[in-house]
Formats: sequence, structure tokens, C-alpha cells
Amino acid sequence: MSATVPTRPAESIVARARGVRSVVGRMVSHAKKAPGSAPGTLFHTGRRKMEQVRLRLIDYDVDRIEELTLSTIEESFSYAEGPRISWVNIDGLHEVDIVQAVGERFGVHALALEDVLSTTQRPKVEEFDDHFLVILTMLSFDEATESVVSEQLSLIVGQRHLFSFQERPGDVFEGVRERLRHGKGRLRTRGTDYLAYTLIDAIVDSYFRILETIGDRIEALEDTVLDDPSMEVMKRIHGLKREMLILRRAVWPLRETLGQLYRGELPQITDETRVFLRDVYDHSVQVIDTVETLREVLSGAMDLYLSGVSNRMNEVMKVLTIIATIFIPLSFFAGLYGMNFEYMPELGVRWAYPALLTFMAIIGGGMLWQFRRKGWL
Amino acid sequence: MSATVPTRPAESIVARARGVRSVVGRMVSHAKKAPGSAPGTLFHTGRRKMEQVRLRLIDYDVDRIEELTLSTIEESFSYAEGPRISWVNIDGLHEVDIVQAVGERFGVHALALEDVLSTTQRPKVEEFDDHFLVILTMLSFDEATESVVSEQLSLIVGQRHLFSFQERPGDVFEGVRERLRHGKGRLRTRGTDYLAYTLIDAIVDSYFRILETIGDRIEALEDTVLDDPSMEVMKRIHGLKREMLILRRAVWPLRETLGQLYRGELPQITDETRVFLRDVYDHSVQVIDTVETLREVLSGAMDLYLSGVSNRMNEVMKVLTIIATIFIPLSFFAGLYGMNFEYMPELGVRWAYPALLTFMAIIGGGMLWQFRRKGWL
Amino acid sequence: MSATVPTRPAESIVARARGVRSVVGRMVSHAKKAPGSAPGTLFHTGRRKMEQVRLRLIDYDVDRIEELTLSTIEESFSYAEGPRISWVNIDGLHEVDIVQAVGERFGVHALALEDVLSTTQRPKVEEFDDHFLVILTMLSFDEATESVVSEQLSLIVGQRHLFSFQERPGDVFEGVRERLRHGKGRLRTRGTDYLAYTLIDAIVDSYFRILETIGDRIEALEDTVLDDPSMEVMKRIHGLKREMLILRRAVWPLRETLGQLYRGELPQITDETRVFLRDVYDHSVQVIDTVETLREVLSGAMDLYLSGVSNRMNEVMKVLTIIATIFIPLSFFAGLYGMNFEYMPELGVRWAYPALLTFMAIIGGGMLWQFRRKGWL
Amino acid sequence: MSATVPTRPAESIVARARGVRSVVGRMVSHAKKAPGSAPGTLFHTGRRKMEQVRLRLIDYDVDRIEELTLSTIEESFSYAEGPRISWVNIDGLHEVDIVQAVGERFGVHALALEDVLSTTQRPKVEEFDDHFLVILTMLSFDEATESVVSEQLSLIVGQRHLFSFQERPGDVFEGVRERLRHGKGRLRTRGTDYLAYTLIDAIVDSYFRILETIGDRIEALEDTVLDDPSMEVMKRIHGLKREMLILRRAVWPLRETLGQLYRGELPQITDETRVFLRDVYDHSVQVIDTVETLREVLSGAMDLYLSGVSNRMNEVMKVLTIIATIFIPLSFFAGLYGMNFEYMPELGVRWAYPALLTFMAIIGGGMLWQFRRKGWL
Amino acid sequence: MSATVPTRPAESIVARARGVRSVVGRMVSHAKKAPGSAPGTLFHTGRRKMEQVRLRLIDYDVDRIEELTLSTIEESFSYAEGPRISWVNIDGLHEVDIVQAVGERFGVHALALEDVLSTTQRPKVEEFDDHFLVILTMLSFDEATESVVSEQLSLIVGQRHLFSFQERPGDVFEGVRERLRHGKGRLRTRGTDYLAYTLIDAIVDSYFRILETIGDRIEALEDTVLDDPSMEVMKRIHGLKREMLILRRAVWPLRETLGQLYRGELPQITDETRVFLRDVYDHSVQVIDTVETLREVLSGAMDLYLSGVSNRMNEVMKVLTIIATIFIPLSFFAGLYGMNFEYMPELGVRWAYPALLTFMAIIGGGMLWQFRRKGWL
Repeated sequence: MSATVPTRPAESIVARARGVRSVVGRMVSHAKKAPGSAPGTLFHTGRRKMEQVRLRLIDYDVDRIEELTLSTIEESFSYAEGPRISWVNIDGLHEVDIVQAVGERFGVHALALEDVLSTTQRPKVEEFDDHFLVILTMLSFDEATESVVSEQLSLIVGQRHLFSFQERPGDVFEGVRERLRHGKGRLRTRGTDYLAYTLIDAIVDSYFRILETIGDRIEALEDTVLDDPSMEVMKRIHGLKREMLILRRAVWPLRETLGQLYRGELPQITDETRVFLRDVYDHSVQVIDTVETLREVLSGAMDLYLSGVSNRMNEVMKVLTIIATIFIPLSFFAGLYGMNFEYMPELGVRWAYPALLTFMAIIGGGMLWQFRRKGWL
Repeated sequence: MSATVPTRPAESIVARARGVRSVVGRMVSHAKKAPGSAPGTLFHTGRRKMEQVRLRLIDYDVDRIEELTLSTIEESFSYAEGPRISWVNIDGLHEVDIVQAVGERFGVHALALEDVLSTTQRPKVEEFDDHFLVILTMLSFDEATESVVSEQLSLIVGQRHLFSFQERPGDVFEGVRERLRHGKGRLRTRGTDYLAYTLIDAIVDSYFRILETIGDRIEALEDTVLDDPSMEVMKRIHGLKREMLILRRAVWPLRETLGQLYRGELPQITDETRVFLRDVYDHSVQVIDTVETLREVLSGAMDLYLSGVSNRMNEVMKVLTIIATIFIPLSFFAGLYGMNFEYMPELGVRWAYPALLTFMAIIGGGMLWQFRRKGWL
Repeated sequence: MSATVPTRPAESIVARARGVRSVVGRMVSHAKKAPGSAPGTLFHTGRRKMEQVRLRLIDYDVDRIEELTLSTIEESFSYAEGPRISWVNIDGLHEVDIVQAVGERFGVHALALEDVLSTTQRPKVEEFDDHFLVILTMLSFDEATESVVSEQLSLIVGQRHLFSFQERPGDVFEGVRERLRHGKGRLRTRGTDYLAYTLIDAIVDSYFRILETIGDRIEALEDTVLDDPSMEVMKRIHGLKREMLILRRAVWPLRETLGQLYRGELPQITDETRVFLRDVYDHSVQVIDTVETLREVLSGAMDLYLSGVSNRMNEVMKVLTIIATIFIPLSFFAGLYGMNFEYMPELGVRWAYPALLTFMAIIGGGMLWQFRRKGWL
Repeated sequence: MSATVPTRPAESIVARARGVRSVVGRMVSHAKKAPGSAPGTLFHTGRRKMEQVRLRLIDYDVDRIEELTLSTIEESFSYAEGPRISWVNIDGLHEVDIVQAVGERFGVHALALEDVLSTTQRPKVEEFDDHFLVILTMLSFDEATESVVSEQLSLIVGQRHLFSFQERPGDVFEGVRERLRHGKGRLRTRGTDYLAYTLIDAIVDSYFRILETIGDRIEALEDTVLDDPSMEVMKRIHGLKREMLILRRAVWPLRETLGQLYRGELPQITDETRVFLRDVYDHSVQVIDTVETLREVLSGAMDLYLSGVSNRMNEVMKVLTIIATIFIPLSFFAGLYGMNFEYMPELGVRWAYPALLTFMAIIGGGMLWQFRRKGWL
Repeated sequence: MSATVPTRPAESIVARARGVRSVVGRMVSHAKKAPGSAPGTLFHTGRRKMEQVRLRLIDYDVDRIEELTLSTIEESFSYAEGPRISWVNIDGLHEVDIVQAVGERFGVHALALEDVLSTTQRPKVEEFDDHFLVILTMLSFDEATESVVSEQLSLIVGQRHLFSFQERPGDVFEGVRERLRHGKGRLRTRGTDYLAYTLIDAIVDSYFRILETIGDRIEALEDTVLDDPSMEVMKRIHGLKREMLILRRAVWPLRETLGQLYRGELPQITDETRVFLRDVYDHSVQVIDTVETLREVLSGAMDLYLSGVSNRMNEVMKVLTIIATIFIPLSFFAGLYGMNFEYMPELGVRWAYPALLTFMAIIGGGMLWQFRRKGWL
């Protein structure tokens, strides 16, 4: 294995195998609902990923900004209904009451709340009386297991407040928070639609970074495939192909969703923000292009692998054939004069032995020359 | 075979082979009709799957609920036309009279009744004067034969009654019945359109469970394929691929059907229920996504299998080549000094034998070193 | 070859090869027209398939029905213009005058008549002043040559008469004639549009039977492929794939044609009949589904064949490797002590021979143990 | 090689290889223009294919017809503007002045003239004030090199004149000229739109003949592939696949073009002619169907080739394995008793030699029996 | 390797490998932006490709033309707002101020400016108050590394000025400049829309030249593949396939962009120019056709490679089999008479030795005859 491919300890491969097991798991979580249970009944379908739900509030206008950590969701409501813009970020979905409280307060449909909690939704946008819900997938790439980890992000966007729900702490929004704090750019002067755009933009930007990481892996694999087409390489190609399926499933509906947003089907989004959404939309198209290209590159890598393998086989066969073809006839002649017949006149001839050796050398040399002529050597 | 793959007794494989034989059978049942027989002539095209048709009635409104087992379909009509909502479930289609009686009573078109009885219809929705007919496919996964078993469910939905026709007893509606009995959720307060939605939702939910089961099987197979790419594994991959064709054929038209339902082409469906149907529609899209992803994963598994096989072949060839390449030349030299020429001066030399042995050891060792250098060992 | 695959005599394979030769022939017959000849010049492009054109008339209304065999097409015209419905069936297209006479009498466009005679048209529907023309493909499956035989059926449908043109006697309409004779169902009470529907329905129904036959063949082939992946099986898979291309070409435009008919683009078709056409349309979609599924199953069968072949190769190689790997080293040792050096001290040792035999047994046994450990035995 | 495949001299293969080299050349000729040269600058991009441009005029109405060979294009203009219909056919495009003169006289856009001269255009139709331009591809099949030769045909159609531009003499219009001369059919009584239709129809008809020729080649190849899967056959399959790409590229845009023509987007085309154009359109769809089918048949032939090759390999391996597996163990035993140990009691036993021979026969026979049982013999 | 394939020094392959590494890099450059940084913040994402930004101005009308090299962008503004048409070409994007200055002066949206600087955009067109922005990809083919090099070109087009931004000096516009200088054609008499068209046309024309170069490479590779299917050829095929992905990604959105331009969605484009844009649009469709065809030709080349490899393997196996099958049995017989049994009556027979030799010759000859009959020789 060449130096360009990061070596991976055996356990990480096992871990990847485990990661891989959840291909369907990462796509559907419905099975965990009791069949036939009432639609709109809220419960969280993902794995509980943290101990304690964390509520963070950023309340701002052009002039001032306030950051708080809340202990109950109800505390946020007075801010949310205040004159400034409030961004409430909820890390952790297992306390269903919080989602329900937000839903009841702002008239969000029970099914939409169910979607927030059911963490394997396709990206989508839905409109309510004066709110809209955007569901997105945050992705990250786990280097050790070479697998894509996805986390659902739901945004409930009202006139002057935005609730964002994540499955666990840790996100790609630190840059956005920094910009809010320092009042850089136009972020502090705009409404919640622009804030929502900024968050979406941060997510789509993060996809590019994942694609670059995967792209680097693929290219390292391609180099390896040429040097050493081992089964291990094949497994990794196969694994990455599978991860691309997960990625692909996230980005195709994303484009649709962003298309709906920028084409102005929602009255809450201003024309100004629409121009920016058009820009993220373009980026999402670029992400799709890249995903599809990488898929084709991976298919190409598999072809390389297969021709590498058959090339090796060819080489092995050539070695065997050369050796066998030279020595099997020679052994025959040696065997011939090892026979014990009483009347074998050659045996008594003085120069017979050197003559036979010469003959053998000529045969062997002739064969070698043939092989060289055929390009086998 | 690794422990993760459930072992299957030989007879189940035969059973699967039999199940497999019906790929076309599971898609069309038309051939059983006499060619040229009059359209709209009612007879049941499926296999008779039970002795006795079973009729169950649930009659409810917000305040009370009644459950009955009926002996004739006519008994249900007074309920069906009463003020409360009646759900009549018919298990078994071979008594054509029952279907005909319902059709005549509520003005359902003869062709629609034919579709109810012809049990390999594509999912579809059709509207009549004040009824609509929904045809769906209930699926289950037979673990022993690794095959998808499908059963047609037809719903005839009127203003205050819903008739559901199944081919045999056993369905995914127990949860719905429980919710009706206990009056949980909004089910008891809504009309037949919501009841129909609830039944459809239960079916689509059950698809997710089947996909999870198949997904687990596929992932177990993938592990096996890496360890032991036997023909048996190949056959199972092939079998699952075939089952995915059956599944796929059920879910693509389902999406269309649900699209028609939620887009509000039917006046019987209220706007409120439409929102819920939109949700099932989204789920059906997710099912399609998953089916297509699993198909790609299966193709990948087949690629893994093929490269596993050629890898094994390579290994076999290497062993043969190493052994033959080392010993065939050595045998030649042994044979050389086994010749019976009278004048072979080496034979009389005292140190010739140890010298030859040393020479042979060097040759053999040199070859081994070569093989190690080439990475064959 | 297992018992489930019907054995086929050698000559039928030759026959199939001949049948196969006409893949393009079965798709186009244009080449037989002199290049640049005037469009609308009528001549028959198919092979003459019978001696004598046969004209059969069925003239009916609700009350009575008359069946006649006519000697000239002109005899039919008085019936055709009479008050009852006349169905004139023409078996054989080589007497161009007959087609021309019908065309002139009922104002059918010369190009449409050319289409009737040119027997490799795609299914289509065309409208004229008060007639419409439907072109369909009747298919049958020749069991001996495993090939799909197609025959063009053209219907010229007027207000109270329907002319059907076939290339040769024998069709799938016996059931329809029976229903006409016995006055069963609604057929006698309806117009020519319903009669046309009935004929189309009979054809589409017959497709299902062909698909079932082919499906059975494919499944028998799949079983065989697993037991005995011979070249003969491969040829049959390939042959069936080719037949599926022919089938596919017939059914895709059929759907389009039926779609045009049921969507009500023709004023001659009543709303009542439209419902029935919708039903045939659904069936044609089912036919397409099945054709596409069978194509995928065939591709799967080819994959099975290829992995069966490489599996066999693997097995062959293993046998060779095991034998060679055990005996080549042993032969070397035997050769070693067959050398004639004067000073080989071992040769004189009393227990050397049994010791060597033991050593050889250990070597051989060790190798066998190795192979078993690798799972090669 | 079976008798059904025409043998081809070695040079024709070289010629084909040269023909093949122009795949891109046959698709684009733009590179020959100096980059950045002014658009609308007229020069001919094809190879000069003849010495002298040839101008032929046919001037006709219902009553009389005149055929002339002109020496300058200007001579044609008085005819073109006369009351009768004039068809001016120009063989050879390298005299740019001729094209320019026509363009200027009848107000054809400079870009359209550029398209006439740039001989690798996609089929298209363009409209000008009172003219329209149709660009088509005439194809022929060069039997010797098995390659499709394409030639661009441009029609400039005015009210009472039609200019047709070809790259070289020789076309598929002789039949049209005959019909004009003899006044058969409706050709003499119609306008230039019908003449244009007639020319297009002649071209599309010629496609069918090419497809039949290629179809026959493919089917002969398929037979050969089964008997003798040599590399030469593979090359020819590959070559035909490439030619299908050329064909495909010509026919897909043709359909579009004909669709535009018959759907009546051009006022110069009468409704009567439109019906005929609809007919050619249908034929072009049939051509596409056939091209796509042949492409699939070729893919199938390649699969057949590959399985033929691996089948042969299998057979070769079986022969090797049978021989080696029988004789290598036997040789070992012979070697064993060729050893020179002093104390080998068997050697002195009288019946040892025949016993060993019997033992060897049993071993050998047993192996043969094994191979027969496995179906290897 | 045949003479038609240019030999490439080993280092160029390494270079290509490096080029190849940037497949994703050539598609996205977003990752270089700090995640979450404000949209519309301008910085250049490409590699800095030159020391000094170069500003060139061409200011012209029908009567006169002036060419200048500017030192600051502000100098150009007075020209740009003057009565004549000004084309300002900026080579180098790393001085962000220049782009910003143009943007502010002419009211170009910040996001559009970001797109100008972010050099991996998909081709697109965007409209502003009285300007429009066109983003295109200039491609060139690096012969040494066999890779496609892409450079982004952005055009900001106003009423009487056009700003073109390139990443580095060197472009395909020299011909356009020449035509401007010499006042040839209609270029000097038209507006900026026509100038923009001319630049786009020059770019699309250059694509054809790249495709021809790649096409030649592919065809040379195809010849090589047949003679010598080495791993090196495979790698080059794979490399070209990858380059086609890059090309493809550039040309598909180009067609869309040109479609938007010619369909007249921008008021700044006159109807006259629209006709010309329609022409470039047609060329872009031709480029796509060619790219797709080349992709299929490359797939075909890979198939050729694979069958070439398996053909070689077959040949190698045949040689081995022939030699082994002839000599292994012969060796056995030689070994047989090398045994040391005391009672082997044949050994004492005088003619036994010549008889055995004759027998061996017959066996060997018979085998050779068999092989010839099977076509292995």
C-alpha cells in the first residue's frame, strides 16, 4: 500500500462494517414506530444521542445582540415574540415536549412536528399559516470508518423567530454565530429568511468539504489500485460507493427544496433573499454534479481494479507457462536416458552426454527466444 | 458461512425456487381468464386461499363502537347506510357474489369490480359517482423462502362506509383496529376518507419493515460474500434482486396513486385528510428511494462476489505457480543425474552430490525470494 | 439438463437461428419497396402467407346475427351500409384491390391503406372524416423455435361497420365470435367502437399468455443455468433476450395508441367505451411492466451463467492445483534418490527408504490438510 | 469462419481502420475553420470530393417537364422565378460562390449558407422570409470497410423552386426523377413542399436498406461468434457498434426535424403535404427503434463473444487438468521405484512390476471415471 | 506500441497522475472559503496563476479603434461610459479590488462578483438592471499530461462596454482581436451583444479542436489496444474517460446557458444577434453529441482491452496446455522404464527401446493432430 493511502487499523474496518450495516437504517427509521400507531403522535425515532437537551438563544437586531442558554423552551417564547429576531437552537430531539410546545405555540401542523422528530426525512419545505418548515440533512464524514454521518436539521421559521432542531450538539454554524456577534456583513440587518438562508448556505458549503475529502480518498485509492489491486482496496471502493448512495439521497431532494424556496413560492421570503437562495441552489446543483462525477470515477476505479486483477493473473500464468514449457520437455529427455533398457546404444557413446546437454540448452534457449518474441518476457 | 447469515435448510431453498417460479405469475393473472371472455364478467383470478369468506364489520362514531362478524354481506348494508361510519372487511375473494352485491348496491362499475377480483392489478385509484376505489398491494416477506409475498387490498370508499377486500385473513391493520376501539387520536372523529388514509398509512409503514428485513439480509450477504464467495451466496443475491423487482413494481405505481389522492382530484377527500395523504405520499417516495438504493447495493454485492471469485482464482493460480515453478526445474536437474550415460564425469566426483543439493537449495530459495518480492507470498 | 426444460430437437435450433435472422426483417419491411416509388402506391410488403384471401362477414344487432363467407369485398358493402353492425374480417393482404376498394368506398387516406398493407408498422391510431384506423400487432409464440411471431392487424372502424385485416388466417378472436353468436354480455347491444375495444382487449389478453409462456421458459432456464452452465443455455438466454426486444417494440407504442384512444381524442368513441379502453390501457401498462421485468430477469440469468462458468473454472483449477501441488514436490524427492551419483551416503542406509516414504506421506498429508483448511476440499 | 460471413481481404480491414479513425471527423468539421474567424464567412469544410461542380435543373408543371445541365448557377434563376416548379440540384460544395449566389438571390441568412457548406451539421429545419432550409444526412454503407458513409443534403425550398446541395454526385433520388419524368402519381401536380417531402422520403427509405444490410452483417457475426469467438470477430462487432453511433447521431435529430415539419410550424407547407410528412415522421421513429434494437443486439453479440471465450478457456483448462491429474501421480509412482536405495524390498519381488502396473491402471481409470462423473469428458 | 501513439516520458505520467488528483478540485473550489463566511464576501478561490493583473482595453466604433494597456481599472471607466464600445479584458483574478470596482460602478450584484472570483462555477447567465453576466469555461488540452485544463471566463456586458475576466493570460480570442483591428465582417458595426456572441463563439469553436485532439488520441489508443493490451493503455483509457467527465460537466450547462441567451430572455440582446446565438447553441449541441459519442467509444475501447486481455490469457493457456499435455504422458512412460524392479521383462528385449520411441512419437504426434483439429495451433 502506497504512502498516500492513510493506513487504517483493523478495528476501524470492523467499525466501518458496522457503519455500513445501517445503509437502510440511515434511510428509514419508520420501522421503529409501532405499525398502525396514530399519525401525528410525536415520538423521536432516532437514537438518543445525548444526555440533556441544550437550548441556546441568540436574540439580535442591528444594534445589539444577546446570547443565552435556556433551561426550558417556554423561556424563549417571550423573546420569539419580541421585536428583535430570535434564533433558538435546540440540540437533541428526545424530549418530545419541547418540539410539541413550539408546535402548539406557533401553529405548526402535527405531521410537520412528526417530521422534525423522525430523523430520516428527505429534505423538504412546508408552509403553514405564517411559518414555514425546512428540513435538511447535515452531513459529516467520519474519517476512521470512511462513512458519511448524517444528522437532520429542521428549521421552523416565523416572522421574527427561527427555531433550529438538531439531533446532537456540534454543527457547521460557528461561522454564522461569529458573524452575528461581530455584526459583519448584512446578516444583522436582515430578517429571519436571510438567517435561514445563511444556515442553509453553511450546510451546502460543508458538503463541498466532504466531497473534497472523499474525492481525495478516491484518488488515493486509484493510485493504490494500480500498484496493488488487493481485495482490501476493492472493499474500500465498494464502501465509498455505498457512501455515495447516502450522499446522493441527501442532495437530490435538496436541490428540489432549494428550488421551491428560491422560485418564491413562500410569501415569507423577500425578493432580496431570493437572489441569495438562487445562489445556494446553484451550489446544490454543483454538489449533485460532483456526486455524480465521483460515482463515475468510482465505477472507473472498479474497472481499473478488475483489469489490474486480470493483469496479475495473466502475469502469474505467464510465469507458470514459461517455466513449465521450458522444463517439462527437458525433463522428458532426461527421463528418456534414465530408462533401464539393456539395449540403448546412445548410453555407451562417449560424447552423447555433452551432446544431449547442448541439445537441451538449444531447446531451452529457443523457447526463451520464442517467449521474448511474443513479448512474454 | 459466517454466523450472521441465518442458515437455511435445503428444503427452504427448493421452496424459494418454487416461489421464484412465479415472478411472472405474481405480476399477471390474466392468462387464467378465457381469452376473449366478456370484460366485466366477474371471477376471481387468484388462488383460493381460504375455505370460508370472513366478513367483519366495525361500526363507529365518536361516542360508540360496535364490532360484528357477519354471515352475509347483505347484513352490512343497513349499517353501511346508517348514520355512523361502517368499515366492512372481507377476507377472501372467491365468493364472487359478495363483491357483486357490494358493486350493485353502491353503483360501482363492473370493470372496477373485476379489478378487485383480479388480484395482480397495479395500485390505482378510480372514482365513481359518489364512491372511489383504491387498489393497493399489501406485502410481506417470507423469511424461509426469502421471497416477497403480495396480497391485493381493495378499498371501496363511500360517504359513510368503507369496504375493504383482502385475499386472505391476516393484515397490518390490527393497530388501526386498536385505535378505533380505544378512541385514541382523531380517528373516531373523522370521516371515511381519514379511515382510508389510516389503512394506506399502515400499509406503507409495513413496507419500511420489509425493506429493513431485506436490507439486513443484504448486508449479511455482503459480509459473507467477502469471506466465502460461493455459488450459494450468488444464488441468494440473485434471488433478492428478483424480489426487489417485485417490490419495485408495487411501489412505483403506488406513488402515482397517492399523488392523485393528495393532489385533490377526488371530491370525497377533505382538505384536512389531504395533508395526511401528502405525508404518506412522502413516505412512498422514501420507499422508492430505498428500493432503488437497495438495488444498487445488490449490484455492488454482485460486483464484490465476482471480484471475490477472481481473487480466489488468482490465489489458487499463485499456489500452483509457486509450487510448479520451484519444483519443476529442480526435478529436471534430479532427472539429469538420473540418466544412465556411461560417461558422465560428474557422477564420480565425491562432492558432486552435496554441490548439487546446494545448487538446488539456492535455485529454490532464489525463486522463493523472487515470489516474495513480487508480493505473491 | 433438468427435466423442467423441454428438450428441443437439433433441427428446431436451426429453425430458431433462421427465425432469429429476421430481427431486422421483423421490424422493417420498407426495403422491399423500390426506393423512391410514389408514396401511397399500394402493394403488400409482407410475405404472401396464404393462397386465397378469405372474407368473413358477421352482421348483427341485438335481435339477430348472420354469418357469411363472401367471395368479393363488394358484397360486404351493402351490409356495411345497412342499419346493423357489420364486421368484415379479411384474412390475407396480398390482393391489394380489396384494401383499395374498402379505402375508396369509405374515404380512407391512401397513406393509411399503405400502412395496412405494409406489415411492419408500429401500432397507431389515425382518424379520418368519419372513420378511424387502428393498427395493432397480434403476437404468438412459436414453441419449437422459441421465437415470437407477429402479425399485423388493422381495424378500419366506421359508424356501423368494422373492417379487420389480417395477414393470415388464425387469430385470437374466436371467443369474441362466440360471444357475438350467443349474445352474451353487452357486446350485441353496443356500437362498433365497443366491438373494436373487444378485439383490442382480446389481443392484449393474448400478450399475457405469451409472457407467461416466456416467463416459464426463462425460469426453467434459470434452474438449468445453475446446474449446467453450458453454451447451449447461453444461446437460449440470448435468443429469448432478442425475442424480448421484438415484444418490447410491439408493446411500448401500443400503450401510446391505447392512451390516445381512451383519452377521447376520437369523436367516434363513446364515453361508455372509453371506460373500457381505459381498462385495456391499464393492461397494456401491465404488459410493459412485465416485459421490462422479464428483461431484467434475463440479464440476471446471464449474470448467473457467467458466475456459474467462472465457478466451474475455479473448480477445475482447484483440482489441478491440488494434484500438482501434492505430487510435483514428491516426484522431485523420488527423482533426487533416482540420481546415479557414486557418493550418495543415504542410499546405503537401511531405514532411508521407509524414512523417505514417511517423509513423503507427511508432506502429502500436510498439503491436504492445508487445502482443507483453505476450504478447497 | 462459416460461409455466411463474407470474407474480407486484409487491406479492407486496414481501410476500415482508417474509416474508423474519422469517428470524430465524421461528427465535426469545425476545427478546420480558423479559430475566431467571422461567423457567416462562407467556406466549405468538407473534403473536396469532385473536380467540377455539376448543376442539374428539372423544370416542370403538370403538362411538361424539361431537364437541363447548367454551367452557371445564374442560368437557373430565370427558371426558378418562372411559373413552373424548378428543382436545381448542385453536386459539389467547394465552389462557394454558387451557394452565396443562391443565398443572396433568395434572401437566405448567411449563417444558413454556412450550415449548407459546413458538412457535419445535425439535421435541422430553419425558416426565412419566404424560404425554408432543411438539412439532412444521406447515408450509405460501404460494404468493403463496413462503415457508414454520410453526405450532407441541404434543401432550400421556395414557393416555386427548390435548390438541393450535395457534396458529391450519386444520390437516392433516381426514383424521384423517374416519377417526375413519367408524370406518375401526384408529384407533378403538387408544389415544392411535396417535392421536398418526396426527397426526404427517399432518404429515410434508404436508411431502411442500410439497416437491413447492417442487420444481416450482425446476424452473420452472431453465428460466427458461436462457432469461433476470435479477436477478428470482436473487432468487427466493435466496428459495427461504432458505425451505429454514427447512424444514431443522424437519426435522432432527424425525427425532431421531421416533427417540426409535420406539426405545421412552416406556412409554406400545405396541410395535404403535412399528412405525408407525418408518414415520414413515423418512418423515422421506426428507424430509431431499429437502430436502438440493433445496438442492443450488438451488445448481446459481445456478451456471446465473451462467454464463448471463457467457454473455450474452460475447455482448454479441462484438457490440461485431466492430463496432468492422471499422469502426474502416476509419474510419481514410477519415480518412486526409480530410486536407487539399496534396501527397497519391493524391487526384488517378482509380481511387483505387474502389480504396480495394475495399480496405475486402476488409479488412472478411477480418475477418468471421476472426470466423466463430473461431466468434464 | 504502434508509431501512431506518441510516446510519453515517465514523468509525464506522474504529472498526469497529479493532474488527475484534481478531478474534484477542478469541479469545486468552495472548500477554500471559511465555512460560514458571509456570502458576497469577495475573495479569489483559484490558485494565483500570475504575478501581475493585466488590463487591456479595446475601444472602437465603425470608424476607429484604439488599443491600450491600462494600469488601473478606474482608467477604463471613462472609456466604458463613452460613446464607443469598450472591451476591457482582465487577465488575473487575484486582485479582488478590480472586480469589486467594476461591480460597484455598474451595479453588479455582490453574489455575481463572487461567482466571477470563484473559478469553478457552472456556465450560467444572470441578468441585472442593465447588465448581464455570462460565465463560461475556456478549455485547453495539455498534450503532455493528457488532461483538460479549464479556465473560467466571465463576461459582464453593458450597453456600450464589456468586461471580460480570465484567470491567466492566453486565450482563444486572438482571431477576434484581429477582426476588430482590421474591421472585417460586421463586428465593428454591431453592439456589445454581438461582441459577446463573438467571444462565446470562439470558445465553443475551440471545444471542437479539443475534441478532435482527444478523438485522435482515442483512436490511436484503440489501435494499440488491439496490438498490445498492456496496463499502461488501460490507464490511459481510464485517464481519458476521466477527462471526458470534466468536459461533459462544462458543456451540458453551456447548452442551457446558450439556450437562455438565444431564446431572448435578455432585453440587451437584439434579434439580429439572437440568430447568431442560435447558431452557437446548435454548435454546443453538436459538442455534447460528440462528447457523448467519445464516451461510448472509450467504453468500447475498454471492452476491446478486456477481450484483448482474455484473448492473451487464452493463448498463454493454450501454449501451456499443449506442451504439458504432450510431454507429461511421455515423461510418465520414460519414468516407467526407469524403474529398478528386478523382473521387468521388457527391459531385456532388444527392440523394446526403439518400439517405445516409436510409441512415444505416435502419442505425441496424435496429440498435435488433435490440437490442430481443435484449432489450437
